[in-house]
Amino acid sequence: MPFSMSQACLALTTAFDALSAVLDKAEAFAAAKKIDGAVLLGTRLAPDMYPLTRQVQIATDIAKNGASRLAGVEPPRFEDKETTIADLKARIAKTVAHLKSLDKAAIDGSAEREINFPLGPVNKGQMKGDDYLNHFILPNVYFHLTTAYGILRHCGVELGKQDYLGAIPMKLT
Amino acid sequence: MPFSMSQACLALTTAFDALSAVLDKAEAFAAAKKIDGAVLLGTRLAPDMYPLTRQVQIATDIAKNGASRLAGVEPPRFEDKETTIADLKARIAKTVAHLKSLDKAAIDGSAEREINFPLGPVNKGQMKGDDYLNHFILPNVYFHLTTAYGILRHCGVELGKQDYLGAIPMKLT
Repeated sequence: MPFSMSQACLALTTAFDALSAVLDKAEAFAAAKKIDGAVLLGTRLAPDMYPLTRQVQIATDIAKNGASRLAGVEPPRFEDKETTIADLKARIAKTVAHLKSLDKAAIDGSAEREINFPLGPVNKGQMKGDDYLNHFILPNVYFHLTTAYGILRHCGVELGKQDYLGAIPMKLT
Repeated sequence: MPFSMSQACLALTTAFDALSAVLDKAEAFAAAKKIDGAVLLGTRLAPDMYPLTRQVQIATDIAKNGASRLAGVEPPRFEDKETTIADLKARIAKTVAHLKSLDKAAIDGSAEREINFPLGPVNKGQMKGDDYLNHFILPNVYFHLTTAYGILRHCGVELGKQDYLGAIPMKLT
């Protein structure tokens, strides 16, 4: 099987499953320290950066919207109403299921297609499908996954790189 | 031109050029605030996370080592002696030049090849080339680029998402 755009999109499901397990560790940390989980969800790395909840919402949005556009289908809309770690885990699970449901051949056929997408409430961007995946979807999704991880590390949750990478297909030799 | 592994590797050069420009903004911030640049370079998001200098060293190492292994050549070794922002920018420039010098066809032919790589001083990992790119090189490089960005945001440097993404091939419509 050659390297493909659908394969690169599906690799994100491993990263999202990892994020879900990271949130489990955040929940256990909050319970052990008798901290309201909402404190973690509201933490930011800088006052003008988004808090943890929004980082997870944006990561999932970029992945589900981006991969849907490559597949040529209307992205499902998720309401931004999450207030608990369980809510965020449900959103991540919906995202993973959606990514797995997309037509692989349609994604693989989108390299040369112009993709149009909103940039905030007013602007719109346009990129070729392959560029959209390499230069927009992947860097942005990993940005928000890493920032979510960084917020929790900053709060004192014990996490390592393996928690971020998740169950990657690697053999230890 | 179909979607390819060499194209995905080369997309990282845009992200590294962006990091170099982010470091310019960090240097200007330090000068304006009369802060020794070494303070920024030593800042961490958590006491047991690496400081900014090491984040940049690791991001460049994973990119140059990873892409070299896909291309089937011995990675160049960079000594970890950077003490200034200018030093880090020079390392980034060497990394970008190296990524651009690699044989694209060799990278593209590596999807099914088993890649062996060190994991720390003792362990070794093995992954198929396409998995190594999707699940190791890309998530790890973006992890360290984002953490470098997050450290500088946490220090108060004025940066936005466009600074992180850099000069991506996007048209505003």
